[in-house]
Amino acid sequence: MATAAKTRSPDRELLGRFEAGDRRALARALSWVENQRPGFESLLHSLHGRLGHAYRVGITGPPGAGKSTLTEKYVLRLRERDLKVGILAVDPSSPFTGGALLGDRIRMQDLTLDEGVFIRSMASRGRLGGLATTSLEAADLVEAFGFDVVIHETVGVGQTERDVVSAADTTVVVLVPESGDSIQAMKAGLMEIADVFVVNKADRPGADKLARALKATLGLRAAPADGWEPPIIRTVAVDGQGIDELDAAIEAHREHGRKTGALAKKRAARAAERVRDIVARRSERRVWIERGGEALLAAGLERIAAGETTPYALADEIARAADIDEPAGPEGVAP
Amino acid sequence: MATAAKTRSPDRELLGRFEAGDRRALARALSWVENQRPGFESLLHSLHGRLGHAYRVGITGPPGAGKSTLTEKYVLRLRERDLKVGILAVDPSSPFTGGALLGDRIRMQDLTLDEGVFIRSMASRGRLGGLATTSLEAADLVEAFGFDVVIHETVGVGQTERDVVSAADTTVVVLVPESGDSIQAMKAGLMEIADVFVVNKADRPGADKLARALKATLGLRAAPADGWEPPIIRTVAVDGQGIDELDAAIEAHREHGRKTGALAKKRAARAAERVRDIVARRSERRVWIERGGEALLAAGLERIAAGETTPYALADEIARAADIDEPAGPEGVAP
Repeated sequence: MATAAKTRSPDRELLGRFEAGDRRALARALSWVENQRPGFESLLHSLHGRLGHAYRVGITGPPGAGKSTLTEKYVLRLRERDLKVGILAVDPSSPFTGGALLGDRIRMQDLTLDEGVFIRSMASRGRLGGLATTSLEAADLVEAFGFDVVIHETVGVGQTERDVVSAADTTVVVLVPESGDSIQAMKAGLMEIADVFVVNKADRPGADKLARALKATLGLRAAPADGWEPPIIRTVAVDGQGIDELDAAIEAHREHGRKTGALAKKRAARAAERVRDIVARRSERRVWIERGGEALLAAGLERIAAGETTPYALADEIARAADIDEPAGPEGVAP
Repeated sequence: MATAAKTRSPDRELLGRFEAGDRRALARALSWVENQRPGFESLLHSLHGRLGHAYRVGITGPPGAGKSTLTEKYVLRLRERDLKVGILAVDPSSPFTGGALLGDRIRMQDLTLDEGVFIRSMASRGRLGGLATTSLEAADLVEAFGFDVVIHETVGVGQTERDVVSAADTTVVVLVPESGDSIQAMKAGLMEIADVFVVNKADRPGADKLARALKATLGLRAAPADGWEPPIIRTVAVDGQGIDELDAAIEAHREHGRKTGALAKKRAARAAERVRDIVARRSERRVWIERGGEALLAAGLERIAAGETTPYALADEIARAADIDEPAGPEGVAP
């Protein structure tokens, strides 16, 4: 792997403690990745050989669908099966909802004393390259540390949050039979990404109606390329009802992906996407941060508004400062 | 504007004919931009001084909402006001729906003999930097040619198509009172981008219900930052009903944007976004095409799958080939 020579070296001490199973080293490594501290890519590179064994589950749905309780009960079920579980909860883009998610985390306190469970909340702003990639990198760390299942939990409000969960091996969409909830789900684009549907709080009126509406909507879709029909699981998470069925449905999807090759295909596509994201992030860092692109842009916009320059000339300027401008080739038309 | 020195020179002959008002030169310039032929950015740079006077309207909605008929009637109304109109129709990503859109264009034949109208369909695939930017660049050409209003028309199926229309000064979302249409619109994320709603085919049953549902949904939104409340206009486009009201609503939004400064703000944000897109496109061209990134990626993915390399080492390799790798700085951690 001499090709990674140019990547900054990871912190050997951190790497050593991580590999020795020190949970504080995992927490610190996650902060490095989240804050994109120098050397974070090298750390991920060093740990890459430890990946491949874990299964990744995305859990999303509108606010109030009971995702945290459901996640907690599902995790307890996985623990009964003696699987170690890491949970990455992604805070939606709004800075004002952070508290609620942290509160949800505290409700998971049954889990926090369990060495076989790791819970981490991630903020969703302020870095290059998009939350989806950072989130996958965080999942890599959790998997490399030795957890058997990694759960991405988000509130499905934006494209980015959807990208995060839908990059999982199996994506679970949680709804409740409250009026308009299925519409909310459609609005948030959740229908397209679900491998498994959960109708939570299924003891409430309207559960049958919601399940029927989901079934009807699924019937309108084109036949899925991989032949998987998303099942609709009814749960009352707070009482633990339906959790075994949810676990079985996720396992069935995993097995289907393994048998049909859909899982390997999904993971290969994800690797390609990852490489593109890393390269784009590197290019962005060079252009906008290291070579002063942001400052050039801010100053240039005023000149565009004043009619003194154009977006193209300004882009030239920024590209030249980053040494990514290209000289006119032979195919260029002479002035 | 010496800063554009590195940009390839535009074709002087094409530029001359364009500036002389030759419509074939406009068509050819649009092809250049659409195919990103060498010199296209320079052409846009050269014509930038001719921009700023035209107003841009986006029209979108689900398939079958009657957008083409509505657009045609609206254009006829603008022609009565002696405004010259350019229409850019964006084909959704699927290659299979192209025919329908072209058919729609042919139905606009009342307009095709009018020198004050220009119609162009654009495909939506196969270029760097995204359709939204290319579409805005096409609109620049149409505006620079002298048209007073540029209309972007799309079928609102994907994020890209929504980006295209929502980059207009005023975005019109067209719905029809067929069952589930408002749900379709929500699903497609159209509610968030509308400055003006049209309930077309308003003589059909369900029009009142749709208008009420829209109003209720709008009532649930946070107060808009610019103080604009999207009006809901009822039309029967095929009979020309409601077209004057639509025209007035678009004018009212334009005037609101002018008075509050929201329009200038929107356009400045668009200019910044444009510069970022041009730089990203340039970087992508360098990395993936000129420096062989695509080939390196294809070969590297197999090595990742075989466990012989990692996404980070492969990204390093691709970045190095494009000379955008950075040497370890003083903040790097020594091995």
